[in-house]
Amino acid sequence: MVAQGADGGEAKNGSPIVIVSNRGPVTFSRDDSGTRTYSRGAGGLVTALNAVSRRQDEAVWIASATSDEDARVAGESREEPYEVEDLRVALVEHDEGAYDLMYNTLANPLLWFVQHGLYDLPYAPSLGDDTRRAWEEGYLPVNENFAGAVERVLESSSRGGGEPIILVHDYQLYMVPHFLRERLGDAPFVSLFVHIPWPDPEGWRVLPRYVREGVLRSLLRADVVAFHTDRYARNFVRTAREVLGVETDEEGGVVRYEGREVWARAYPISIDPGEFEELAESDAVLEQESSVRDLPGKLLLRIDRMDLSKNVLRGFQAYGRMLERHPEMKEEVTFLAGLQPSRGDIPEYAAYADAIQKAVEEVNDKHGTGEWQPVVLSMEDNFPRSVAAYKAYDVLLVNAVRDGMNLVAKEAAVVNEENGVLVLSENAGAQEELGEFAISVNPFDLDEGADAIHAALTMPEEEKKRRAEALKRQVRENTIEKWVEAQLKDIAAYREHHG
Amino acid sequence: MVAQGADGGEAKNGSPIVIVSNRGPVTFSRDDSGTRTYSRGAGGLVTALNAVSRRQDEAVWIASATSDEDARVAGESREEPYEVEDLRVALVEHDEGAYDLMYNTLANPLLWFVQHGLYDLPYAPSLGDDTRRAWEEGYLPVNENFAGAVERVLESSSRGGGEPIILVHDYQLYMVPHFLRERLGDAPFVSLFVHIPWPDPEGWRVLPRYVREGVLRSLLRADVVAFHTDRYARNFVRTAREVLGVETDEEGGVVRYEGREVWARAYPISIDPGEFEELAESDAVLEQESSVRDLPGKLLLRIDRMDLSKNVLRGFQAYGRMLERHPEMKEEVTFLAGLQPSRGDIPEYAAYADAIQKAVEEVNDKHGTGEWQPVVLSMEDNFPRSVAAYKAYDVLLVNAVRDGMNLVAKEAAVVNEENGVLVLSENAGAQEELGEFAISVNPFDLDEGADAIHAALTMPEEEKKRRAEALKRQVRENTIEKWVEAQLKDIAAYREHHG
Repeated sequence: MVAQGADGGEAKNGSPIVIVSNRGPVTFSRDDSGTRTYSRGAGGLVTALNAVSRRQDEAVWIASATSDEDARVAGESREEPYEVEDLRVALVEHDEGAYDLMYNTLANPLLWFVQHGLYDLPYAPSLGDDTRRAWEEGYLPVNENFAGAVERVLESSSRGGGEPIILVHDYQLYMVPHFLRERLGDAPFVSLFVHIPWPDPEGWRVLPRYVREGVLRSLLRADVVAFHTDRYARNFVRTAREVLGVETDEEGGVVRYEGREVWARAYPISIDPGEFEELAESDAVLEQESSVRDLPGKLLLRIDRMDLSKNVLRGFQAYGRMLERHPEMKEEVTFLAGLQPSRGDIPEYAAYADAIQKAVEEVNDKHGTGEWQPVVLSMEDNFPRSVAAYKAYDVLLVNAVRDGMNLVAKEAAVVNEENGVLVLSENAGAQEELGEFAISVNPFDLDEGADAIHAALTMPEEEKKRRAEALKRQVRENTIEKWVEAQLKDIAAYREHHG
Repeated sequence: MVAQGADGGEAKNGSPIVIVSNRGPVTFSRDDSGTRTYSRGAGGLVTALNAVSRRQDEAVWIASATSDEDARVAGESREEPYEVEDLRVALVEHDEGAYDLMYNTLANPLLWFVQHGLYDLPYAPSLGDDTRRAWEEGYLPVNENFAGAVERVLESSSRGGGEPIILVHDYQLYMVPHFLRERLGDAPFVSLFVHIPWPDPEGWRVLPRYVREGVLRSLLRADVVAFHTDRYARNFVRTAREVLGVETDEEGGVVRYEGREVWARAYPISIDPGEFEELAESDAVLEQESSVRDLPGKLLLRIDRMDLSKNVLRGFQAYGRMLERHPEMKEEVTFLAGLQPSRGDIPEYAAYADAIQKAVEEVNDKHGTGEWQPVVLSMEDNFPRSVAAYKAYDVLLVNAVRDGMNLVAKEAAVVNEENGVLVLSENAGAQEELGEFAISVNPFDLDEGADAIHAALTMPEEEKKRRAEALKRQVRENTIEKWVEAQLKDIAAYREHHG
């Protein structure tokens, strides 16, 4: 299965597909006997890209080597992709120092913070030569390394197919299109998919000039720059115009750059509903269910990585206000917050984790009774328990400051058994698809959050049912296959359009 | 002198002009003998509006009463504007509690912070019912009060003139256009001039929905919404489209709203160069000059209100880095920072003042010698000393996070006697006019700041002269009269266009 015509008809030629992402679909290791083993990765992006990979037998997936055994596979896969199950992978080994600079200085926190709007601008960031070094000695060489791997894969792949389709993913790899064009010219189709929010021009301008302009110029050497929402795509087009002064057609999602036309498009990422329905019935999840269902009262749930963008603090504060306004809700609800630890070595994240614990104590001290603990905080990575909670929640709180998509909202909706109500931030990417079936909130407004939680907890059963079913339908209908198809369709249309 | 035709020709009719701003041109008091006295206000906006007021004998200026004697004048001026020197003023007395909510909760900090991008979004703001109360019981009634005063002034003014021109100013009065239309209908010309940055849609969305949409809908009931730069005007048009979904023409600066056409326009505010040239020769300034000129080495200067938007901290940090990189500059330069205390009762500002003092100590401890103090910090309001420093600086640092215009850059350029170099933030409004003659910096990049300061301090004399003269010329040519004329011309064009 390869790129199809815009009408969804027969494929025109067998263009080889190459997927490029920092994190890959498998990690290799050795067992006690010294035999190579591997584990398939999980997570939203990997699930989605698996669906791309399944479209074509010959698809090759290029990713960073992250273990010693990965590094060995990287060496072996320089000539020929390594086959494992249904996948063909080529791993890229990076210089450790360069990778660290790319990942821990440039991508996280800088790009992550800028794209989620997390900086306290009067105080941070303090950019400078460290940033430039991370760019020049980390981000650029790692990205070039990826481009080199793509070139090798294409050289080793069977001739006779059409021009390759190269699908590059996310904010660690913004400079890959630049290096690809340097090596391969204009012929291959290149897209870069941005899985986090794209900010407004004012936000993007926080970056030092070489990053600000360098990233944009690289992205504009792709044919399609893809996002989860139309809002991000529009922000991107504006950013290109304001920062580079290039000609754009915002409504049409087009940027003209160096004589070429670049499309900015939205493809809201989805999940594999079947995967979650299966999981929901797995022993691991069933074992966890009583621990979730035995919590007193209705279940208010949040499941998040512990990230500054997730707005965890205001979630507890809004809940506290709800209990103040509606003391009759005491003992009638428990707020279960499952927060996977994340980036604890970054001082901002450590401080945030402390602030969260304090906020939880405050609510529990103020409103708790001998029998009843208003908030149950779980700061461990317990995925089966999360899925058990997905099944059982009455209200799911997703109140992110900003969030590329938020897949929890989709995963949880699919397996929930209680006609649970979604309280959803205006600034989560999921808003564009799910907003009309959720209670939308301004994530900065505590009282609006409190009112939304209360409205959700007390919503009439019929209304809950109507919304919950619409959510499920929406997620089930926008399958991950459709996500892939929409992209392949646009690739065909782009090629047709540009002859 | 009244509104002219688009060709700058004769005025068509004697449309009465009404200026509306929170702070007025005079404050009244009583001297010891109980006689009413007054003092003329200073400051950029007042200077600019004086120039508007001078255009027409009949112009009336409406402002808030801010003293007991103002309140008496407010009572007296309900029937007929109060005449003082060349001005006709009508003061508005507000309920004290309402004014406090408008000013200290809604306008500052909320609108100020949002429009300058100063919030640490993972933690602040925490909006809620307090915000709603400040809006409903403060901002709205104070703004309605202003609209009532406009109506009274128009009723008392001589008939026979054309439709009135009502020029409303700044972020304290965003709802005035709404209340004016409610009272006076569509006939009067109404503009609202925003003197602070207008953010991108993502920034504006931080506001609670009733403010976010309420302010936009009110501004779109004006005929012209005016800004200092094209960038702010574009941001405004985008914000209207993204938040309200209205039809816009961004290039043309047009928003279509409820069957009407609203223009978004930029008129970069200026200063009265003559006023500063005179000031520069005044005794008060001459007395201060030695205290400034006796500082050792070249003079690096900043003059700012102590505001989180001014980026004072990074200024000292960048200077410290410059001294580290160029130890030969030690004792060759003194950084004089004149920071007028401001909003010290807001905790964020008190914390910022502390951080500034620490940053200064750090630089002085690290680099100072027995003879030489690298930074001289002056946290008092000493305007004559500031002007003396304007005359004497070698380098002026304006590195704001964001700044509506920054008039210091203009005032100082006009009177400077040393061919001083301007280091100017990309995010200061002055960048659009003065950027090409300045060294522009990304305010978040410490090393870029350090390099800019060093380049400015060591710039060849001829280059300095060329730039300094261009700066002076630019400021002198874009007079405050031109600022007024451009607006009046657009008013005439707007009226012609809309029949």
